[in-house]
Amino acid sequence: MAHIRIFDTTLRDGEQTPGVALNTAQKVELARQLARLGVDVIEAGFPITSQGDFDAVALIAREVRGPTVCALARTAQADIERAGRAIEPAASGRIHVFTSGSRIHLEHMLRKTEDEVVAATLESVRYAREFTDDVQFSAQDCTRSDVDFLIRLYRAAAEAGATTLNVPDTVGYGMPEEYAALVRRLRDAVPGSDALHFSTHCHDDLGLAVANSLAAVAAGATQVECTLNGIGERAGNASLEEVVMALETRRDYWGHTTRIDTRELYRTSRLVSMFTGVAVPPNKAVVGDNAFAHESGIHQDGVIKALETYEIMSAETVGRDAGVLVMGKHSGRRAFRKTLVDLGYHELDDDAVNVLFRQFKDLCDRKQHVTSDDIRALVDSETARVPQTYVLESVQFQSGTHMTPVATVRMTTDAGVLEEAATGDGPVDAVYHALERIAQVPLALESYEIRSVGSGKDALGEVTVRMRSDGRTLHGRGLSTDVVEASARAYVDVLNKLAAGVGRPRSPVGTP
Amino acid sequence: MAHIRIFDTTLRDGEQTPGVALNTAQKVELARQLARLGVDVIEAGFPITSQGDFDAVALIAREVRGPTVCALARTAQADIERAGRAIEPAASGRIHVFTSGSRIHLEHMLRKTEDEVVAATLESVRYAREFTDDVQFSAQDCTRSDVDFLIRLYRAAAEAGATTLNVPDTVGYGMPEEYAALVRRLRDAVPGSDALHFSTHCHDDLGLAVANSLAAVAAGATQVECTLNGIGERAGNASLEEVVMALETRRDYWGHTTRIDTRELYRTSRLVSMFTGVAVPPNKAVVGDNAFAHESGIHQDGVIKALETYEIMSAETVGRDAGVLVMGKHSGRRAFRKTLVDLGYHELDDDAVNVLFRQFKDLCDRKQHVTSDDIRALVDSETARVPQTYVLESVQFQSGTHMTPVATVRMTTDAGVLEEAATGDGPVDAVYHALERIAQVPLALESYEIRSVGSGKDALGEVTVRMRSDGRTLHGRGLSTDVVEASARAYVDVLNKLAAGVGRPRSPVGTP
Repeated sequence: MAHIRIFDTTLRDGEQTPGVALNTAQKVELARQLARLGVDVIEAGFPITSQGDFDAVALIAREVRGPTVCALARTAQADIERAGRAIEPAASGRIHVFTSGSRIHLEHMLRKTEDEVVAATLESVRYAREFTDDVQFSAQDCTRSDVDFLIRLYRAAAEAGATTLNVPDTVGYGMPEEYAALVRRLRDAVPGSDALHFSTHCHDDLGLAVANSLAAVAAGATQVECTLNGIGERAGNASLEEVVMALETRRDYWGHTTRIDTRELYRTSRLVSMFTGVAVPPNKAVVGDNAFAHESGIHQDGVIKALETYEIMSAETVGRDAGVLVMGKHSGRRAFRKTLVDLGYHELDDDAVNVLFRQFKDLCDRKQHVTSDDIRALVDSETARVPQTYVLESVQFQSGTHMTPVATVRMTTDAGVLEEAATGDGPVDAVYHALERIAQVPLALESYEIRSVGSGKDALGEVTVRMRSDGRTLHGRGLSTDVVEASARAYVDVLNKLAAGVGRPRSPVGTP
Repeated sequence: MAHIRIFDTTLRDGEQTPGVALNTAQKVELARQLARLGVDVIEAGFPITSQGDFDAVALIAREVRGPTVCALARTAQADIERAGRAIEPAASGRIHVFTSGSRIHLEHMLRKTEDEVVAATLESVRYAREFTDDVQFSAQDCTRSDVDFLIRLYRAAAEAGATTLNVPDTVGYGMPEEYAALVRRLRDAVPGSDALHFSTHCHDDLGLAVANSLAAVAAGATQVECTLNGIGERAGNASLEEVVMALETRRDYWGHTTRIDTRELYRTSRLVSMFTGVAVPPNKAVVGDNAFAHESGIHQDGVIKALETYEIMSAETVGRDAGVLVMGKHSGRRAFRKTLVDLGYHELDDDAVNVLFRQFKDLCDRKQHVTSDDIRALVDSETARVPQTYVLESVQFQSGTHMTPVATVRMTTDAGVLEEAATGDGPVDAVYHALERIAQVPLALESYEIRSVGSGKDALGEVTVRMRSDGRTLHGRGLSTDVVEASARAYVDVLNKLAAGVGRPRSPVGTP
């Protein structure tokens, strides 16, 4: 019975999802939740790429206890130095050094010979060991690489002191048996591999990321790299919740354990979705709205008689509770605070609770039933906040068939309170034109999404927008019972994030 | 090199996705597209469950040529008779007889002994053979069944004349190697299995549906059951596009072929999403917005120099084209018709083209750039239409911060043109209250979603709602540049579907 290490890369590879940009506060918040979830390693970022990435890794290394904090670096001295500095404050810190293994990557990206890549690996892993004893090595694109060259490369990395050897299927090309055979082959070929950890890093381009990860576990891998909700470049990474629940539900088959507290899975999934703006599809395994039979509406004969007939795990195991009524208009501050703790928000300070309590009271005025989902939405959108350079004071609009939509907006900015009116194709468009006139920041709308939070007619509307400004892509989020107002709030959220310097150009280099 | 049969069950298991209800016209339209895609078998429905299901199967059997048309039936004479009648008009028709194999299903659902189940299987498969030579047999929940009992059962089915033996992992419990071993074991145990087709039917509860299907193919299965976009009960079924692209992209590894025209994959995925109202997540393999590197914005060194560095298949292979500008205000009817054909809509009659052309011209008045995505959205929402018992004449509304939202709605109904006003929590809520006053039909809103179609500020808003009325769940869809108007259209769409009798209570029995 082996202990399989869960290496979460939501904050690094997950953040490379197009349009996703997390700020430092969000990263720290997520890292705390990952610690509660019980992951073994948090890959917190790629410090050389930006000051923001460096700061986030350093802050997580300082503040978050439990998991090992890992920083990514290419086989270059400057990269490793930045990574080493960033993880310095961690109780347990790791540097993850990567290069590429395939001919196509060597030719087109690295422009190096095989000998040069081996030499850089030796030198870089040795240098990384000067910062920490915990060094991980990866060669991108292993599944399209020459195995003999990979063996040379991984032997060099181990010889230089790497303690974890990760085998990335960077482009999602491998088939389970084939990928498992590769991991087995490398394990057999690297001297002293019993004392090392072999690791999987699988992408989902052909829908096999989870299967490939598990196949490698069967071949002796003891670490799985994954992300919550399976987010990441292109089709994303292996999904943490699926890997964990497959190992957990079928422990009879695998005989392995993880340190994951599965009851934190659902909450973590929701937090990631909230911060990244990437919605979880209803038919997503484990965390999707329809994943459980009794939530799918299969209230038929079989299920009533024995839930087991169509369910292989219980909703409680993964921490799902229905969005039941928890509070009303007359609930006091103390009860509200208790509810927050029950929902898993242990670390909110008094100021935050006061702000949330006011918002909760406002919500009670507008909504009859306030559910746990509503409160989660309030907290998650509050903790995702950046400094409020722009404050939306009021929105008014009028529209209809055969009528030109018109909107008036009042907003506080650095220049004081400004008011503007504009027309548009619809009320949201009119409001956006008016906001544009006030803010004078060129923003291109790339996508626009609404979902309702909570249930019933008076559900809250949550608007997520993705906007582009000057090469930076940002997600904004707004919450209101009025979809047009929620849309305005999402726009203002983007303005505030831009003002706070959140959002950065895409990673300048390819990664595992 | 084997030919792997693709058995599409989007219209049967896919339609069992919570909240999804397709009408007959939509089912026929989808079946036509599945024929263009080149699937071998279309599971068109479960005729005993409702007249609507029977009619849809019969119509597809009559109208759609190419694939075998299959109907589902329990091991009961009435089921088989209905299934047999429904597929009568097909050039090639199949009856799919199913029972259950696991102790838990036998006890709680069937309430039969093993001997009784074997007897019913023998009798039912024989009876099905009186209607067609092409009979498929399944025992639900194979992965949690006693193998010796399964062997008895599948031997009986083969002896009685079943030509395809399907091995459902109904609850998504199997692990790839284990599931493959089960299929191999059954193949070895059933006499004459070389002349039979073994088939997979995998659910994705642990994220392994595609991997399990492929593992079974390696163990000798020659048919894969799957759905577009992986929709279906709970976490859904094996995703057709992933299974096909894994076999296709890695033909070097598998050495198998399918008859699928992969260039039709994207269009089929979109049509399924449009008709079912289930959105495709951005990180979905093959068909998600981010699935391809160049669409993910990875316009960096590697990709510019050689797309291959991060891409294992090309976007063209799966029929993705950018939403490029195709038409403007001055485009004529002839050019519009040609565009429709270019986009793959070959079978629209003159009336439909005329209606669409008027809508296109209206759109040109409101939007500067009309893209291929806009035109697809128009066609798809038009072909999804039911008879218009309710026609929305006009919507007007006014709302804002510190203002009670108010709306006025005019709608034509059986009772003539009616007008009503109402207030609400927001403009959509106010409009819905006004519509409710006119229609007097109790509807509970279960979910509400907007996405933008096309790009840019003047993108169309597409609203999808899921509503429940008297035990029936329906999806409605509305399209407009104004999100509130689009919301109103979605509500009216639900009213029309209810009036047309679309939407039915959930299937009364558990299925594979």
